[in-house]
Amino acid sequence: MSAIKPVLVVAGVRAGGTGAATAAAFARKGYSLALISRGSEDLKALEEELKAAGNEATAFPVSSYSASSISAIFQSIHTRYPSPDYTIRAALYNASHSIRKPFLETSLADFRAAQETIVEGSFTFSQEVIRAFKENDVDSVTGKRGMLIFTGSTTSIRGNTTTSAAAPAKWGMRALSQSLAKEFGAWNIHVAHAIIDGVINTPFSRSRFSDRSNWVENEDIRLNAEDIAKAYVYLAEQPRSAWTWELDLRPALEKW
Amino acid sequence: MSAIKPVLVVAGVRAGGTGAATAAAFARKGYSLALISRGSEDLKALEEELKAAGNEATAFPVSSYSASSISAIFQSIHTRYPSPDYTIRAALYNASHSIRKPFLETSLADFRAAQETIVEGSFTFSQEVIRAFKENDVDSVTGKRGMLIFTGSTTSIRGNTTTSAAAPAKWGMRALSQSLAKEFGAWNIHVAHAIIDGVINTPFSRSRFSDRSNWVENEDIRLNAEDIAKAYVYLAEQPRSAWTWELDLRPALEKW
Amino acid sequence: MSAIKPVLVVAGVRAGGTGAATAAAFARKGYSLALISRGSEDLKALEEELKAAGNEATAFPVSSYSASSISAIFQSIHTRYPSPDYTIRAALYNASHSIRKPFLETSLADFRAAQETIVEGSFTFSQEVIRAFKENDVDSVTGKRGMLIFTGSTTSIRGNTTTSAAAPAKWGMRALSQSLAKEFGAWNIHVAHAIIDGVINTPFSRSRFSDRSNWVENEDIRLNAEDIAKAYVYLAEQPRSAWTWELDLRPALEKW
Amino acid sequence: MSAIKPVLVVAGVRAGGTGAATAAAFARKGYSLALISRGSEDLKALEEELKAAGNEATAFPVSSYSASSISAIFQSIHTRYPSPDYTIRAALYNASHSIRKPFLETSLADFRAAQETIVEGSFTFSQEVIRAFKENDVDSVTGKRGMLIFTGSTTSIRGNTTTSAAAPAKWGMRALSQSLAKEFGAWNIHVAHAIIDGVINTPFSRSRFSDRSNWVENEDIRLNAEDIAKAYVYLAEQPRSAWTWELDLRPALEKW
Repeated sequence: MSAIKPVLVVAGVRAGGTGAATAAAFARKGYSLALISRGSEDLKALEEELKAAGNEATAFPVSSYSASSISAIFQSIHTRYPSPDYTIRAALYNASHSIRKPFLETSLADFRAAQETIVEGSFTFSQEVIRAFKENDVDSVTGKRGMLIFTGSTTSIRGNTTTSAAAPAKWGMRALSQSLAKEFGAWNIHVAHAIIDGVINTPFSRSRFSDRSNWVENEDIRLNAEDIAKAYVYLAEQPRSAWTWELDLRPALEKW
Repeated sequence: MSAIKPVLVVAGVRAGGTGAATAAAFARKGYSLALISRGSEDLKALEEELKAAGNEATAFPVSSYSASSISAIFQSIHTRYPSPDYTIRAALYNASHSIRKPFLETSLADFRAAQETIVEGSFTFSQEVIRAFKENDVDSVTGKRGMLIFTGSTTSIRGNTTTSAAAPAKWGMRALSQSLAKEFGAWNIHVAHAIIDGVINTPFSRSRFSDRSNWVENEDIRLNAEDIAKAYVYLAEQPRSAWTWELDLRPALEKW
Repeated sequence: MSAIKPVLVVAGVRAGGTGAATAAAFARKGYSLALISRGSEDLKALEEELKAAGNEATAFPVSSYSASSISAIFQSIHTRYPSPDYTIRAALYNASHSIRKPFLETSLADFRAAQETIVEGSFTFSQEVIRAFKENDVDSVTGKRGMLIFTGSTTSIRGNTTTSAAAPAKWGMRALSQSLAKEFGAWNIHVAHAIIDGVINTPFSRSRFSDRSNWVENEDIRLNAEDIAKAYVYLAEQPRSAWTWELDLRPALEKW
Repeated sequence: MSAIKPVLVVAGVRAGGTGAATAAAFARKGYSLALISRGSEDLKALEEELKAAGNEATAFPVSSYSASSISAIFQSIHTRYPSPDYTIRAALYNASHSIRKPFLETSLADFRAAQETIVEGSFTFSQEVIRAFKENDVDSVTGKRGMLIFTGSTTSIRGNTTTSAAAPAKWGMRALSQSLAKEFGAWNIHVAHAIIDGVINTPFSRSRFSDRSNWVENEDIRLNAEDIAKAYVYLAEQPRSAWTWELDLRPALEKW
């Protein structure tokens, strides 16, 4: 007689990034993994890596974070991790869309791409996840039917001269997270938003900042994806009497 | 030798509402009016009313606030108010989209409708307006090439249990306004965001609150559109050394 | 049969500063002036200047903004401007205390000085003012028994590396203003807080920034006290249906 | 050859409250405890309880949280836990001062009492603690010389009709915490602020809410001090690449 296996769904997975580190961290807590990403190469490699470490992990490549892509991929996730053997217990919306442009050089397509990936994507993802959560029992330890986390950034709380596409999207996702936290607390569904304030040490950022002396070694000046993942595990384990909607995360020496 | 006539463009005009009152208030300051609205009946009546009072006003009905509708309508506005006789000097994005629904009853179409009207609409409107502003001289009294105002609400700063569609849109528009204020201050273009906190006394709200004793007469408990319009005129007249990005407006007795 | 004359009380008056400009602006609206300041020289000169321009103005020098000083000075104000001929209708708390120091170099005396001037001073000032306001009739045009304005700054909303004394004081005053706005809206008493974000062109700042080319002439890069005063007059004139608690004011080209 | 023992200093300890729970939680992590409180009875009982459980704990009763009391008590703490055997590694400012009154019924003494306990107390406490932290090595696991946490509440971020004394104090302490977080991040000193949004299940609140059915049993509607303590331990253990300045904590079903 086996217990129902908890599944973590992560949207936004890149090699060495927050999504990948979170997947690995939850795997160590016994979660099976559904990994959604646009970059299928990284995704496949990560799936292999997680499996090699003895975890149950499945890659779900998508061409975009449009509502239809996300809805379709959740069909696949439910097929791969069918009830009653599996149930979605945690979810991370970590998809991002980098754009920093002067306003008048920002095309409608640029703007929509940011909106689609960050706002519409997170909306649809949340509907799929919360529908799944509502089927769960309340966990006796954490008091949760499920944990939904959004990865934000300083652009989520501050507009600036080149953020006329990025900031509306990021503020929109933060607003969604707050609305959901308030609506679904009553269902014992925990929704949180993290403000990542600083540069994460990933293969991509390492290539960009290789000229900054000591950037990789000095953990006081950039974030480790693994440390963000620890914060997400902490949120998932917060007991029902004391849940966090929002926390910021930044390196010790970050200026803000 | 005639001076260039300033034009105010208002998106979101309903009988007795903020857009209409703002049009009338700017008309009294010598502005010609370009009135954009989805409700063509109200719009035509308002155009007539403004003209009857001796103002230059033109109705520009649109079927939606999609990017393409807005871009198309600005073509018509430029044709109606051609350079060098006219120039867009002020603009108000006042379009709104009422939606309060539980998250799981919010369809993708609901969500997109709010996003389109509030976020995508304000983005495209702003591009049209700021492009026009950049052609202007800096006004010697106000230090402005132009004034762009957005009408927000408490949903622009707070998510709640039924705002999973409305709040992402409103926060998004507010983020846009802050990004633009920072980017275009350097161009002497003034961008502001008003948080309207309370119910405005309009024909529509009067029909809803007719049962509340004294609601219409008591200006301490609801907003007058004319008073909001005064605030917008004030913003447009602020001199260059002291511009406001954001202000809140609420009735004396509003609880908040 | 003479009408009751309205009085503006200003705490924090320096030559060429916001307090002085506000006094002059309200004088033009028919207010008599009660001017409180620690710098008695500037204060006397300003009193003379205002009188020479035909206004009724009285200097009330104080040695500090301690509660006892403020309470005492209000006795003098009531004596000078006795009921029923006069009544306090508007008040500005503009007293400030400049301090930027590393935390461990900030003495308890430093800290208390900032607290006394900014927090305890504004608390006592507000009690005196609101007690006076409550005696007033509601003005039929503005819907107000009185208008109380606080001058804040970016330090009122953001702590930083050298603000461990200044920020607690400024945030404290802002909190007071919000609490009072909510409590006394019900009394038709209007309370507002202005965030002055930038350097004001005063004799003092001119001496500091004389090396910055064009700093005095260029109104795009620093605030005019007169323009801040205009904003305060605007707040005092806002009609009851649309009052502002908080607005920010900054030069067109300010980075923020 | 013995290692240096870490000490946690807690100001604000009551039976069954956050301070007491935090002391116990850090004791389980190997900390010795310095417990500061005005209520010497609770304090002594807690000291005994902690010692009985095998911990090193000392009660430091104070008559108030005035600067002089706090400075004096730190002398005693340093005497009891002398260097190099002991070192202060963590500190919690949890002292509070309950006051909800209409503004005009708030005496100067009321106002000052709140200011003294919350603002001046936390300022002096922080100076003592940060001076001590600066002597420490950077911990190799957490990247910290020390962890300083402040307990805030919703009054720390929102003024209301009866908070003209409480809100200025609470906002002030929050401002201090942000200033210190920014100034001392550069010293690998971690400063955080927690917003406790809801009622904590303590002997005191139980006596107040005993009439609310199920209030004690239902962890979805009130906070456990132990769960807040867990959050504080989590903050103290956050690694240097990802520190939090602020997080909120509320029960699953809290309305906000």
